[in-house]
Amino acid sequence: MMIEGIRLATAQAGLYARKRLDMALIELCPGSASAALFTQNRCAGAPVHLARRHLSGSQPRYLLFNAGNANAGTGERGMRDAQTLCAELALLAGCAVNEILPFSTGVIGEYLPLGKMRTALPKLLENLGKDNWLHVAEAIMTTDTKPKLSSGRCMVAGREVGIVGIAKGSGMIHPNMATMLAFVGTDLGMSSEFAQRLFKRAVDKSFNRISVDGDTSTNDACVLSCSGLSGVLLDERDEEGIASFSGLLDQVCLDLAQLIVRDGEGAGKFVEIEIAGAIDTEMASQAAYTLAHSPLVKTALAASDPNWGRMLSAIGAADMRIEQERLSIHIGDAQVVSGGSRHSGYTEQAGQLAMSSEDIRIRVDLGLGNASERIWTCDLTAEYVRINSDYRS
Amino acid sequence: MMIEGIRLATAQAGLYARKRLDMALIELCPGSASAALFTQNRCAGAPVHLARRHLSGSQPRYLLFNAGNANAGTGERGMRDAQTLCAELALLAGCAVNEILPFSTGVIGEYLPLGKMRTALPKLLENLGKDNWLHVAEAIMTTDTKPKLSSGRCMVAGREVGIVGIAKGSGMIHPNMATMLAFVGTDLGMSSEFAQRLFKRAVDKSFNRISVDGDTSTNDACVLSCSGLSGVLLDERDEEGIASFSGLLDQVCLDLAQLIVRDGEGAGKFVEIEIAGAIDTEMASQAAYTLAHSPLVKTALAASDPNWGRMLSAIGAADMRIEQERLSIHIGDAQVVSGGSRHSGYTEQAGQLAMSSEDIRIRVDLGLGNASERIWTCDLTAEYVRINSDYRS
Repeated sequence: MMIEGIRLATAQAGLYARKRLDMALIELCPGSASAALFTQNRCAGAPVHLARRHLSGSQPRYLLFNAGNANAGTGERGMRDAQTLCAELALLAGCAVNEILPFSTGVIGEYLPLGKMRTALPKLLENLGKDNWLHVAEAIMTTDTKPKLSSGRCMVAGREVGIVGIAKGSGMIHPNMATMLAFVGTDLGMSSEFAQRLFKRAVDKSFNRISVDGDTSTNDACVLSCSGLSGVLLDERDEEGIASFSGLLDQVCLDLAQLIVRDGEGAGKFVEIEIAGAIDTEMASQAAYTLAHSPLVKTALAASDPNWGRMLSAIGAADMRIEQERLSIHIGDAQVVSGGSRHSGYTEQAGQLAMSSEDIRIRVDLGLGNASERIWTCDLTAEYVRINSDYRS
Repeated sequence: MMIEGIRLATAQAGLYARKRLDMALIELCPGSASAALFTQNRCAGAPVHLARRHLSGSQPRYLLFNAGNANAGTGERGMRDAQTLCAELALLAGCAVNEILPFSTGVIGEYLPLGKMRTALPKLLENLGKDNWLHVAEAIMTTDTKPKLSSGRCMVAGREVGIVGIAKGSGMIHPNMATMLAFVGTDLGMSSEFAQRLFKRAVDKSFNRISVDGDTSTNDACVLSCSGLSGVLLDERDEEGIASFSGLLDQVCLDLAQLIVRDGEGAGKFVEIEIAGAIDTEMASQAAYTLAHSPLVKTALAASDPNWGRMLSAIGAADMRIEQERLSIHIGDAQVVSGGSRHSGYTEQAGQLAMSSEDIRIRVDLGLGNASERIWTCDLTAEYVRINSDYRS
């Protein structure tokens, strides 16, 4: 997998006690157009502030990543550290400092080990190659157990273009870019404004529809870069071309988002929650997240226990006007609740069968309207607690 | 401990596989005035609906409790079952059916084992005695590991009156009466309207300020009953008497609420979260619950890990207008954050010392206004997951 006009590199800067890839660099060819979305967290890390600032003035040429340290909660010194790294890289690469976007992920509240990171910069520039996507996906992992990658090809204006995407994220996952980094590249050409529009729509339907633990992080960011080196420039009136590209972009983002949930910290189950029959999508979404964030629902999922009473209770506790007697709930193909109480044809065996799968689908019909929403989450296991109790030690 | 005019009884109705007290009855003398507050869950259990209805017509003479089964999500049959039990008890006790309030706690979605429960009713009436408070506290336990009881005496109008309270609750604990049953009795006399006013105030400052897992239950209820048998009738213009009684009532409710948090499922830490410097109490409360519900904060608490970055991140993720550079955070006596980043005088040792205690106090100053709020919560442990994965099996 490669995208003409995009080169990537990784390095071992020694940011972890054990030896591993922990820094990455992505180079975009001149003329590339990029779109970016950042965390909504009000205590966003220094790299997020700096990347936003750099993006306001120019299109990026380099994206610099590190794992192991989020450079968040680090005040002015953290901001200076991020600036220093960008300035040094600009000098080495021969570009303007605001053509560099920094991205950090890892522990919050520690200062960056600047010396180690500066030492790695020349190596990153030397190692740039088109075929390093998987290595970058590895270098940005924190508690992830697997690198996350998705790609595809589609036709625009009679010619083939490609998309490759990588992502990291495993805990602190929640809508609004929670502890997640993602980079998606394409050789299709388009304006950065149009890229932003298509990318926002794709992200809203993928990365903003997943939840591992309801915690939203300080550092998350995702970027779409369009090199244009396929020779195809997207015509903004070409509805067919837009549909083709946008469909693939949506799919790559959804693949990456679902890979994040599947690799959720300690997760044993992949859970799709669909709410139908809501008055509006906001209500559907609120009901879905109420289920996805309920520790009692999530522990029942971990135990493969068809404890639908907890689902009923969680929905009833959501701050919205539901009517119990209109509620129905399916787990997989088994209807467990109709009219707000146990469905007459439900058997514990059918519920247990539906819950025994690794992929579980919960479908709730609120019976109030026509709006619906789907999100993806995972179960809550003792392993999640272990991972997050040991994280810094 | 006893309260003149209140008698209590327990029974083993066989609602659990192992032998234990699982039903309880409280008898209030004629002329008693009661106040009650119920869950806000929109899928409230049958007993909640029936108790509300009975209360609307008359003052209660009997409160009937069972553990092991919540009679929630049980539809019309659940409602009929609760009515049948009240009707049968009314017949045996010689009172009107709406003078009986039913309370159930336990698994959601199963029908009540009516036969066993009816058999226990005559025994409950036979066993009534003034000194059975602790036994009732035991009989209503579900995943609780300890019975919860608090009492005290105070002076009103120159005479001594008493308050005794019992409660249950350990998981699914969240404001608005989440999986919690509480009964508070006093021999002071007052109108039910005035009791409701004082009780609501006490509950808002205690049971509505705790959170174990953010889950809100279908069945919770708390009742204050005033027998009047001390011979003292509260004069609603007696400010001193009201202050004296209300102070003790607040304390008994707070004791019980904090006992619930201390006995939180799998809890190893008791955590007070205070938010100061908020623009209004709603903002303070929202920030406090954002911390109390963050799995990453709660697992750090379990690990005694002073991972203040997670606290900063959780507050930043709250849906409100905070300003990072105004934030300060203390853990116990150690200041960990000032101006939105690591406090200059902070050392990891000081943080670890503050986190090593079983009782932890987190104080956040938002630096925006003068409103503040305090809530109580516990940590999230692997034991919590174990308890809730095994609950039904």
